[in-house]
Amino acid sequence: MIPWEERPNSSTEILWRYSKNPVIKRNAAKNSNSIFNSAIVKHKDGFAGVFRVDDKQRNMNIRTGFSKDGLDWTINNHPIEFIKESEEIKSDYKYDPRVVYIEDRYWITWCNGYHGPTIGVGYTFDFEKFYQIENAFLPYNRNGVLFPRKINGKYAMLSRPSDTGHTPFGDIFYSESPDMIHWGKHRYVMGAGYTPWQSLKIGPGPAPIETKEGWLLFYHGVLLSCNGYVYSFGAALLDLEKPWKVIKRSKSYLLSPQEIYEQVGDVPNVVFPVSAITENNNVVIYYGAADTVTAIAFGYISEILDWLKYEN
Amino acid sequence: MIPWEERPNSSTEILWRYSKNPVIKRNAAKNSNSIFNSAIVKHKDGFAGVFRVDDKQRNMNIRTGFSKDGLDWTINNHPIEFIKESEEIKSDYKYDPRVVYIEDRYWITWCNGYHGPTIGVGYTFDFEKFYQIENAFLPYNRNGVLFPRKINGKYAMLSRPSDTGHTPFGDIFYSESPDMIHWGKHRYVMGAGYTPWQSLKIGPGPAPIETKEGWLLFYHGVLLSCNGYVYSFGAALLDLEKPWKVIKRSKSYLLSPQEIYEQVGDVPNVVFPVSAITENNNVVIYYGAADTVTAIAFGYISEILDWLKYEN
Amino acid sequence: MIPWEERPNSSTEILWRYSKNPVIKRNAAKNSNSIFNSAIVKHKDGFAGVFRVDDKQRNMNIRTGFSKDGLDWTINNHPIEFIKESEEIKSDYKYDPRVVYIEDRYWITWCNGYHGPTIGVGYTFDFEKFYQIENAFLPYNRNGVLFPRKINGKYAMLSRPSDTGHTPFGDIFYSESPDMIHWGKHRYVMGAGYTPWQSLKIGPGPAPIETKEGWLLFYHGVLLSCNGYVYSFGAALLDLEKPWKVIKRSKSYLLSPQEIYEQVGDVPNVVFPVSAITENNNVVIYYGAADTVTAIAFGYISEILDWLKYEN
Amino acid sequence: MIPWEERPNSSTEILWRYSKNPVIKRNAAKNSNSIFNSAIVKHKDGFAGVFRVDDKQRNMNIRTGFSKDGLDWTINNHPIEFIKESEEIKSDYKYDPRVVYIEDRYWITWCNGYHGPTIGVGYTFDFEKFYQIENAFLPYNRNGVLFPRKINGKYAMLSRPSDTGHTPFGDIFYSESPDMIHWGKHRYVMGAGYTPWQSLKIGPGPAPIETKEGWLLFYHGVLLSCNGYVYSFGAALLDLEKPWKVIKRSKSYLLSPQEIYEQVGDVPNVVFPVSAITENNNVVIYYGAADTVTAIAFGYISEILDWLKYEN
Amino acid sequence: MIPWEERPNSSTEILWRYSKNPVIKRNAAKNSNSIFNSAIVKHKDGFAGVFRVDDKQRNMNIRTGFSKDGLDWTINNHPIEFIKESEEIKSDYKYDPRVVYIEDRYWITWCNGYHGPTIGVGYTFDFEKFYQIENAFLPYNRNGVLFPRKINGKYAMLSRPSDTGHTPFGDIFYSESPDMIHWGKHRYVMGAGYTPWQSLKIGPGPAPIETKEGWLLFYHGVLLSCNGYVYSFGAALLDLEKPWKVIKRSKSYLLSPQEIYEQVGDVPNVVFPVSAITENNNVVIYYGAADTVTAIAFGYISEILDWLKYEN
Amino acid sequence: MIPWEERPNSSTEILWRYSKNPVIKRNAAKNSNSIFNSAIVKHKDGFAGVFRVDDKQRNMNIRTGFSKDGLDWTINNHPIEFIKESEEIKSDYKYDPRVVYIEDRYWITWCNGYHGPTIGVGYTFDFEKFYQIENAFLPYNRNGVLFPRKINGKYAMLSRPSDTGHTPFGDIFYSESPDMIHWGKHRYVMGAGYTPWQSLKIGPGPAPIETKEGWLLFYHGVLLSCNGYVYSFGAALLDLEKPWKVIKRSKSYLLSPQEIYEQVGDVPNVVFPVSAITENNNVVIYYGAADTVTAIAFGYISEILDWLKYEN
Repeated sequence: MIPWEERPNSSTEILWRYSKNPVIKRNAAKNSNSIFNSAIVKHKDGFAGVFRVDDKQRNMNIRTGFSKDGLDWTINNHPIEFIKESEEIKSDYKYDPRVVYIEDRYWITWCNGYHGPTIGVGYTFDFEKFYQIENAFLPYNRNGVLFPRKINGKYAMLSRPSDTGHTPFGDIFYSESPDMIHWGKHRYVMGAGYTPWQSLKIGPGPAPIETKEGWLLFYHGVLLSCNGYVYSFGAALLDLEKPWKVIKRSKSYLLSPQEIYEQVGDVPNVVFPVSAITENNNVVIYYGAADTVTAIAFGYISEILDWLKYEN
Repeated sequence: MIPWEERPNSSTEILWRYSKNPVIKRNAAKNSNSIFNSAIVKHKDGFAGVFRVDDKQRNMNIRTGFSKDGLDWTINNHPIEFIKESEEIKSDYKYDPRVVYIEDRYWITWCNGYHGPTIGVGYTFDFEKFYQIENAFLPYNRNGVLFPRKINGKYAMLSRPSDTGHTPFGDIFYSESPDMIHWGKHRYVMGAGYTPWQSLKIGPGPAPIETKEGWLLFYHGVLLSCNGYVYSFGAALLDLEKPWKVIKRSKSYLLSPQEIYEQVGDVPNVVFPVSAITENNNVVIYYGAADTVTAIAFGYISEILDWLKYEN
Repeated sequence: MIPWEERPNSSTEILWRYSKNPVIKRNAAKNSNSIFNSAIVKHKDGFAGVFRVDDKQRNMNIRTGFSKDGLDWTINNHPIEFIKESEEIKSDYKYDPRVVYIEDRYWITWCNGYHGPTIGVGYTFDFEKFYQIENAFLPYNRNGVLFPRKINGKYAMLSRPSDTGHTPFGDIFYSESPDMIHWGKHRYVMGAGYTPWQSLKIGPGPAPIETKEGWLLFYHGVLLSCNGYVYSFGAALLDLEKPWKVIKRSKSYLLSPQEIYEQVGDVPNVVFPVSAITENNNVVIYYGAADTVTAIAFGYISEILDWLKYEN
Repeated sequence: MIPWEERPNSSTEILWRYSKNPVIKRNAAKNSNSIFNSAIVKHKDGFAGVFRVDDKQRNMNIRTGFSKDGLDWTINNHPIEFIKESEEIKSDYKYDPRVVYIEDRYWITWCNGYHGPTIGVGYTFDFEKFYQIENAFLPYNRNGVLFPRKINGKYAMLSRPSDTGHTPFGDIFYSESPDMIHWGKHRYVMGAGYTPWQSLKIGPGPAPIETKEGWLLFYHGVLLSCNGYVYSFGAALLDLEKPWKVIKRSKSYLLSPQEIYEQVGDVPNVVFPVSAITENNNVVIYYGAADTVTAIAFGYISEILDWLKYEN
Repeated sequence: MIPWEERPNSSTEILWRYSKNPVIKRNAAKNSNSIFNSAIVKHKDGFAGVFRVDDKQRNMNIRTGFSKDGLDWTINNHPIEFIKESEEIKSDYKYDPRVVYIEDRYWITWCNGYHGPTIGVGYTFDFEKFYQIENAFLPYNRNGVLFPRKINGKYAMLSRPSDTGHTPFGDIFYSESPDMIHWGKHRYVMGAGYTPWQSLKIGPGPAPIETKEGWLLFYHGVLLSCNGYVYSFGAALLDLEKPWKVIKRSKSYLLSPQEIYEQVGDVPNVVFPVSAITENNNVVIYYGAADTVTAIAFGYISEILDWLKYEN
Repeated sequence: MIPWEERPNSSTEILWRYSKNPVIKRNAAKNSNSIFNSAIVKHKDGFAGVFRVDDKQRNMNIRTGFSKDGLDWTINNHPIEFIKESEEIKSDYKYDPRVVYIEDRYWITWCNGYHGPTIGVGYTFDFEKFYQIENAFLPYNRNGVLFPRKINGKYAMLSRPSDTGHTPFGDIFYSESPDMIHWGKHRYVMGAGYTPWQSLKIGPGPAPIETKEGWLLFYHGVLLSCNGYVYSFGAALLDLEKPWKVIKRSKSYLLSPQEIYEQVGDVPNVVFPVSAITENNNVVIYYGAADTVTAIAFGYISEILDWLKYEN
């Protein structure tokens, strides 16, 4: 059973925050500076996760964690060590992982340091042994998000091409692959600039959720204020068979940094969604707050889809 | 009667904050992300205002609001719709309004999106119907503030010429007009750089207050710290007949961001004064805090004038 | 009679260069570093001009010059000294003048240093005594170009709002005035970005030429290459009564820097048109080359109008 | 027979320029602003080419051209129109083409405008009909250069990942593909910074030339001077089977902008090699000069290989 | 006796914060905007300090202060007035002082405004009269830190060369002097980039503490996040006789901004150590928090040295 | 006898160029890319020099050269190898040398790469053996110029503090030393901004020339145009005993880039004076042109001094 808390009576929000946020604090793992932007999935009779844990050197890396209820987590003391199929596959750093189960295994993607940021790819059958394969793309790229099933017989991935620094631009693209190694048929999905909260750059969040009406995608968007960035997030609905076709896109944000743990931290004013778990109509979104801690928010899928229609 | 609270015994400040700040919270209007940088005037037996309300798309626009006591406000659910005298007059966005009563009507000025930011001008007789006329200036300009009466038979306006982005410069200029349409006789008033809190850029705040000694102008100033901007505000005294002549100017700030609602929000470390209402010697300043909420501060005009002398 | 040279047989160009370019060399006046971006008009039985002459301090200022044939010029040894109607009118520097005759006098506009660049305005009846009046606009602006007659009873000016530095943006706007002092009814005319040669910024060149089909405007456009800017120029046709309505606009440039005196100099790769004189169907364009010397090019107005149609 | 001119007696250079450079002038095609960075191959009993021709709007596009001797060229009046296999394949602009013959056809790659620059791919059998297929990579990328045969059964390409603007960085990577559609196994080859002439960014030039000792690659490198960029070129030797292994790399440049047609033009100080044709031990390099004209230089492959050894 | 508080049972940190931080609040002196980055030394039977107090003009200057217990401070109402040996010695501003006792007097160094920031030098025997001598270096430099005794018969100083603005680089250098006037034998000590928390720039903190194993240096380091800087601090061990030789250097930070008074203030996310006092094995570090207030942290020297070994 | 050529009859310039400029071409030494910014002195019965020779890797280094007449030069095939008194003294690169004879030897200063640019110092007795001692200053500095005799018993140096990159600022400072190792008493001499040609940055050129009226200093100045920098040079007169006191300073430049070899090259639009030799009233200035070649200009000292008076 996924974590749940009803919408407070006082709220009219589509998404509402967990009353005990942040659910994972910055020092909840050994030698950790911060724990955020992390990927939760159902596993066995509980939950497993791949967590971004920056240590006190401020190295960025990813670790496993396990929980019975999705709220109380035991996070590993050390980063995941991947078994690599080739000596050529390197990784100067890893961050912002996503995890998705396809057919027989959990696939992990992340921002991988290989002469600049690109999309690292790996898999595990059991959250014990992890295998790293080829990077999906040439540098420079930052948010690689797999769809939870093959589409037209191909693996499918969203990503956000980027550059070597703190890129002041970012659009979402779609690519496909017959073998998880070679990628092509690159398609533009949608770009920054639709409404002000998402005017500077956007990027895909959790793995898309399949609904009858299309793929439900939560995505982050960034606004450049007079004094720094604000990272919020909204939603879009993508065509089931041609996911680069956008059916609906939110004009308003669903959540923006308004709580102190989202506004204050290593990177002020950030909410950044990275994974979502569902049960029937319920969805729980795990999001990084201020690049420092992990928080969650709840919603009903049907309400989000209705809201997307209203938004257009 | 204007809102009032005596200076706390513990305080020696020239301006003191309202104990229940922020007086208007970010979600106090329908679909609002933030309510700040707003223009309050006396109206009928209470108060009316033109409020900057950014919605949850982060669109910037202005709405009316009404209050009996100046503290408890009812803010309109929708932006003001202006009646335009010409199809040529456009407005991609509106923000940071000022309101002033001259002769027979309330004049509103604001930062207007017309191929970049410039000064929009409109008026209302009753806060119900609003009329928009020509922009006062060519782009690019951001803070247009009318004087509350004609000077030497001309309308008079302060403004801060700017550019297309988040301008790292800004001085205050004076312009005059016979008809509110054509503007000329542009005069330099004062510039950034006098003391450090106002060293990067400055801009006019509320409509100047007429005193025997001159026009009392509250204005904001910006300091570039090692890690972002700090917006504070101070005061100046301008010549009654030649308002581009500066008689006194504050070396210290009157108020800088020191409360959590001024330091944390969509734009950290901002206090930005936009309107002031007076009664005898009392003045209440409405200012935006962290570009998120609206706060107020109190003072005595005579003390501020004395302080300005001491400051020089 | 205006200077003239027939189109060479080998050429198919709409505009062709004078075979003895540059017509005015950099050291043609006393103590001059460069002579360029200058305004020529018919005067008495020959020609007069207001020349941008940068001296060897690299101060930017304007001087008179006179010629019988428009080719051989005597340029004054000193800058023009304007009689000012007010002590408030200052001028830290002057550059890029335009001159136009309206009703009873020659009006001069230029980029005037007044707490940053803005549009200075002056006039002369005889090219001997010169009078400076109020700046037309608030800073920051760089290319103010008057129409050669009143339109709908008002003076009319094109300009390019700008900022304090070497602005990486620039669009053309229209403004009008009842008295040459107060300016209003600001209208957007056209912006950068139409085709690549004019993609970074544009600005008006010589005073528009009245034709039956509309105002013929030559304007400069700037492309940002991998290694600096390239200034070219093209043409547009504006509505006679509502000159902010663009009827035609060139997709190709008419002239780009391709001769050594346009490619090499104080500012490489610049052709910058500032004045044009006509006789029947003939037009001579005076343009600055490499911000160092003055060159001329010839054309037929009817051909340019035809080409503009073809271009659209 | 390829174009040829012996090394002048006075020269000790490894590469020497053609005495009649530039071999193709800027106005050698209809409506052309500049002709440079172009791809020449042997075709039938002469030569064919895909030329970068920027028109007078400064649009960037590619055209065919034909020559009997490789020196005297007839260039098409219009850009190539590609037959596209899908409506999804767009091209806002095309520049810097490379052409290589593999098995049964000529493959063309170029910098293709698809929501930013990336690598476009097409082919022709006869230089009459041209077909465009999928872009090889996600944006942003600028110099895609195919090897002239499959390596280990896969198509192989060098490229230089980039960003949306005039990127101040650039390294060379290797990628492979089973089908010219899906690309993977991305390998870092070499980066900027080895010696000063190539310290800011580097990129692959002509298709690598197979020699017994390895693939001979000419590549450009950029130095940031106190006042703009300087584009030179050198050579490297890559492993035949694992071309991401660099065997030798030049410390000195082979050619830098020292002739007036290389130093002056639309982009000053650029020599940019794009194609090379060989006959026995002779090689002719076609390079763009000042982003304006096309020039050629001659050399002996064996001498270049010897020089590379000496250079290390 | 120096201030002291035992490590809380719940803590495993090498350094632990004082439970009543901030020990000095922003308004603890007359007309003060902020009090931080200050230098404490033992003096008579208590403590004296040179405090950075920014006033409400945001002028940066330094004042004396005195305390019996190192916790409760009386800070002077006015800046220190230095007696200068020459009219040539100017000081537009003073900030970030350090104080160290050598032989017969207290030496003060600070960031001194002399045509840009450089290192000012002065001394006092009694904290009543202060003398200013020549600046140690040419501009531009920001953090000058004297060693507490001569080394090899010479005065010795660490500093961080800088530029005129908010420098995005910074390494630590060593210099020596026979007379406190002329400085030479400049040696590179260590630079930015070792681990991420110190990847952008670093600078020396308190005067180095002599131990048997070497000079113990606390130093600040800066990380550039996606949205601003984070200032943390760590430690290094320098060779006793050749202090430019680094024996150990911390990979992790010792303290990073994690408390609200470190994360929120005039400059968010700053901890900046400036002085340390010791008693036997105990050390108390005074550090500026958010460039607004002064805080303290405690530690054991032997533990820090052990941790440094473990860190390597 | 120094090189000489009379002023052409047609010229009224204070300085006139050599008719056979450039006197040293870019390829005049083995493996040289460019030879410029070089230091010439009288030596034995002819002349010796320390030349900046960038090689074809574009490494920056300095070489000796010898000439009988100062016009025809034999330049060494290899950089100078300095004998160093300490292993600590490093040199990543050397450029822009100056040479001056004091008492018993030739002192050489140059821009030395030591964790960034700073001032390297060395000496030779015979132009055969060269000794390198300590750097004069901490980084970052670029133009260190010794006076040709001790002043008040101390060595004296002018320099231009700088930063790590292509600094957009630069003022001239004075420092003194008892031993050529330790430097202090740093004094501001003069800064950028006096007139436009020197408005962005300035730096000292050749060693100052002693005259009865003061030290005659040639110095370069930089103007930022709309499209890159322009390096010109002028002169100043400094007080003989307190050389940081400026008696006269040129408002005009003496020489600006106006010849093709000054306008076109590796760095367009640069004239950069580095050494001057005198005989009675005659002076010959050696200057780098376009950072590519070496040129000379002639003048009379008395005329230059007169001109400086006229200039003020």
